[in-house]
Amino acid sequence: MSRYAIGLDYGTNSCRSLLVDLDTGEELGSVVFPYPSGELGILTDPSDPNVARQNPQDYLDGMVTIIRGALEAAAEKRDGFDASEVIGLGIDTTGSTVIPVDEAGTPLALKPEFATNLNAHVWLWKDHTAHEEAASITEIAGRERPQFLAKCGGIYSSEWWWSKIWRCQNVDAAVFEAAYSWVEHCDWLPAVLTGNDKPADTKRSVCAAGHKAMYCEEWGGLPDKEFLAMLAPALANLRDRLYEKAETSEAQAGQLTEEWAEKLGLKPGIPVAVGAFDAHHGAVGSGGKAGTLVKILGTSTCDITVLPNDAELGDVPGVCGVVDGSVLPGHYGIEAGQSAVGDIFLWFVNHLVPDSYGATQDEKFIEMERRLSGLKPGETGLLALDWNNGNRTVLVDVRLSGLLLGQTLHTEAHEIYRALIEATAFGALTIINRMEEYGIRIEEVVNTGGLAVKNRTLMQIYADILGRPLKVAASDQTCALGAAIFGAACGGSMTISEVQANCCRMRDVEYSPIPENQAAYAEIYALYKTIHDAFGSSGWEGKLDHVMKELIAIRQRARA
Amino acid sequence: MSRYAIGLDYGTNSCRSLLVDLDTGEELGSVVFPYPSGELGILTDPSDPNVARQNPQDYLDGMVTIIRGALEAAAEKRDGFDASEVIGLGIDTTGSTVIPVDEAGTPLALKPEFATNLNAHVWLWKDHTAHEEAASITEIAGRERPQFLAKCGGIYSSEWWWSKIWRCQNVDAAVFEAAYSWVEHCDWLPAVLTGNDKPADTKRSVCAAGHKAMYCEEWGGLPDKEFLAMLAPALANLRDRLYEKAETSEAQAGQLTEEWAEKLGLKPGIPVAVGAFDAHHGAVGSGGKAGTLVKILGTSTCDITVLPNDAELGDVPGVCGVVDGSVLPGHYGIEAGQSAVGDIFLWFVNHLVPDSYGATQDEKFIEMERRLSGLKPGETGLLALDWNNGNRTVLVDVRLSGLLLGQTLHTEAHEIYRALIEATAFGALTIINRMEEYGIRIEEVVNTGGLAVKNRTLMQIYADILGRPLKVAASDQTCALGAAIFGAACGGSMTISEVQANCCRMRDVEYSPIPENQAAYAEIYALYKTIHDAFGSSGWEGKLDHVMKELIAIRQRARA
Repeated sequence: MSRYAIGLDYGTNSCRSLLVDLDTGEELGSVVFPYPSGELGILTDPSDPNVARQNPQDYLDGMVTIIRGALEAAAEKRDGFDASEVIGLGIDTTGSTVIPVDEAGTPLALKPEFATNLNAHVWLWKDHTAHEEAASITEIAGRERPQFLAKCGGIYSSEWWWSKIWRCQNVDAAVFEAAYSWVEHCDWLPAVLTGNDKPADTKRSVCAAGHKAMYCEEWGGLPDKEFLAMLAPALANLRDRLYEKAETSEAQAGQLTEEWAEKLGLKPGIPVAVGAFDAHHGAVGSGGKAGTLVKILGTSTCDITVLPNDAELGDVPGVCGVVDGSVLPGHYGIEAGQSAVGDIFLWFVNHLVPDSYGATQDEKFIEMERRLSGLKPGETGLLALDWNNGNRTVLVDVRLSGLLLGQTLHTEAHEIYRALIEATAFGALTIINRMEEYGIRIEEVVNTGGLAVKNRTLMQIYADILGRPLKVAASDQTCALGAAIFGAACGGSMTISEVQANCCRMRDVEYSPIPENQAAYAEIYALYKTIHDAFGSSGWEGKLDHVMKELIAIRQRARA
Repeated sequence: MSRYAIGLDYGTNSCRSLLVDLDTGEELGSVVFPYPSGELGILTDPSDPNVARQNPQDYLDGMVTIIRGALEAAAEKRDGFDASEVIGLGIDTTGSTVIPVDEAGTPLALKPEFATNLNAHVWLWKDHTAHEEAASITEIAGRERPQFLAKCGGIYSSEWWWSKIWRCQNVDAAVFEAAYSWVEHCDWLPAVLTGNDKPADTKRSVCAAGHKAMYCEEWGGLPDKEFLAMLAPALANLRDRLYEKAETSEAQAGQLTEEWAEKLGLKPGIPVAVGAFDAHHGAVGSGGKAGTLVKILGTSTCDITVLPNDAELGDVPGVCGVVDGSVLPGHYGIEAGQSAVGDIFLWFVNHLVPDSYGATQDEKFIEMERRLSGLKPGETGLLALDWNNGNRTVLVDVRLSGLLLGQTLHTEAHEIYRALIEATAFGALTIINRMEEYGIRIEEVVNTGGLAVKNRTLMQIYADILGRPLKVAASDQTCALGAAIFGAACGGSMTISEVQANCCRMRDVEYSPIPENQAAYAEIYALYKTIHDAFGSSGWEGKLDHVMKELIAIRQRARA
């Protein structure tokens, strides 16, 4: 008899499934469902570019399509495949993606009276309408509860739970009044599948709660009512209708109902894991454990590691999220990240690369990569900061911007592209160094995400700059794989590390630092760090007149 | 009876003439002659990109074509035009552009035995083969004769007189031995036209001597033999075969010979002025006088003003050339400049502007200008340094490079182009401020050169940043006009200021600062100056963490 689990990964524009053989690790089926509503699944408001909402019905429709599709694919791929051997289901989503629900846990958007009201829909993570509320929360918490802010990096974001709920209260009293409670997207789907119809009993993800809702056992869960009342009395009242305790994904949200089992073609009663965010499950799906740093390299970057929660760990300055259990039970989940990586390259190729490199975005990338891969470290003479979208770790500052220096009258686009790749790698090194300074040892680095798989030149530059071998997770769907791992483990018949051992493989390619490149980059990194601190840190004071001259000297040596 | 003069302007790739009516200022004829030798007139060496030589025969052939052509054009334009009413001739050239000559003043390159030897040809200003010699001169002069360096900005360039002659001695003994003497291009042509055949008697331009050959009356003309011997004994020996005294262009080099008069179609015996460099004559042709700053806005920029030589004037730090008589007799000629202005824009449009702006360089410039002209100061959020080719004034440092900061994921090419324009204007303001700090009053700013004439958006941004009205000289050929003015004045029948009053007009368009833009730019300039000093000055020490934040705040206000 085989054992399978299904993981579901709900992204920004689509959701996808992965059906995996828990003993062999074989991936038997994976289906993608693009959300049909709005533009690429996002409901927008022409009068306000900050609005980004979603239709919860898309999630339900997608669920059926991607699970049934995965089962069909598995049946085609493996003779004798039996869907009743799927022993569990796990789910991750984007976040903080919050949903106002009624007393039965039904999203208001699914009720006829609110069907056309955007405020009653899902407030997607990238909705930025609540920037004023976020600033107020940062200000009030900084004054009244600095410990709340310390855990989330010093600034409360407009993308997060309380900002959005407060925003709703400020702009749409009718929706706020009608909302009995609020849930995270990753809490809602497991509740639906397991027939939970009381928000008070809905199992809440500690990953979402800890990273976005200022939840921490240290101060008794969610922020106290006194604090919430300083924001708005209505939020203090709401606290009673939220939750007391949040759980790791090793816990069960419940068991699959008869009704959903039939819709999905699965056996009723199988366990459904408590949800979590995509990157955190991605870390587990990449084989993450203590000592492993998982880097999810995409438009932005998420760097995740864990540390046993009996270890000494003080606040790590600028490492924004440390939440017990957010990745693995019994471990602090430690989340860092870069606000833009692939997005910087996309910005550059779309706005500043002439057509002499190619007619399309892809052609331009390929030709630039071809030309830059022949260059030596330092040969461009360029140095960039990777701050076009601010700096998440370790400066935690959105009011920063990009920087490029070293350009001459001969600097070409592919050289700047190389400098931008290097800048993101220097930013990544700064994160690792900060973790290690505070006692979080990084023994291996596993990469996943589009850039890790597709861009070999980038990966070699990263290895040279980080000065460590870089592995690449084998699965193309590490987030969904992580969700499947929790789907399996929450039933109790297998442990997380057992499933990881069976299912988390690395690709054959491993990128090793080339010693001479590593040495050259060590010298350039010192200049990066100087510029990083000079522009990013209020504590820095010093001199910079050596920077351009050293870059020129390095360039001359590299070209000699 | 009319009075005319002819000015000749020998540029890098071509020479041109201007025939002007000295009473009305009417320009009656102008002809361009592209040098036929080499590539765009430049002889290169595939094995060494630093080599840039010219064929002196091109200058002679061009002379006939452009003077005869101007006379023909004048005859066509004005009934009864009489070439015998041309009362003088003036010449400017590039520099330091040096020529080895024999005892009769004949360039070695025109002698059969040296016809194919590049070292026997003209060493064009942009020849950079002598960079090692230049570094040695800087080092030795810094130690032994710091006063020599102070007058030329602290660094002796590979483009200049002694570097090139010494280089020749080091690499080609045969040429160096055969060279009885050396002349500047601007000294040689007047010598030819006036039948001078003894280098010892050749009138030398104080403009060339003072700016490039460390000539100064203060220390008795050229550098002393003791100093030259420290470079090479051969250079000390050569000093006896060079010159004791250099002259302003108000002086006559001599009178036009019968032979040349016939070749050119002019009256024999008319005076030919002592030569000078193009920018210096351009300043005079733009109406330059005490209190006027003439900005020649091209690929690089030359900023020239004058101060009566009885005024108090100490060393102006970083303002590289202060030479008595180099522009106008009786005045210090004060030369500053930016190493790249139009060249930065050309680099940008050719390397970093996608074809969505247009298919050709011109189309891209036009579309970018259209889009950036609608932006307010600060709206791009960007700040750049104009150092892609180093910084000539006020830092006098080639080991600097470009810098751009403030870019986001939405920054577009035309916004960067605007930031680059602004950067060059901030650089220009830094020069003016330095001059004024040291007692050189700038009462009016007159612009000439391609950018001044063609780019109205740039000129308005310059007015807003410099905070002064900007005039544009009417003539398209201000250098040749300046040469003509000296051609007229050296005969003694008219003064320079008389001819200027008759011939130097301004265009109708004048760019006035817009007060609100001026205020916004004052704030951004403070940030520019901080970055300028931080990266450019060894004396700076301080903090920079406010820079990106202030730019974001300014951008937000501008967009509000």
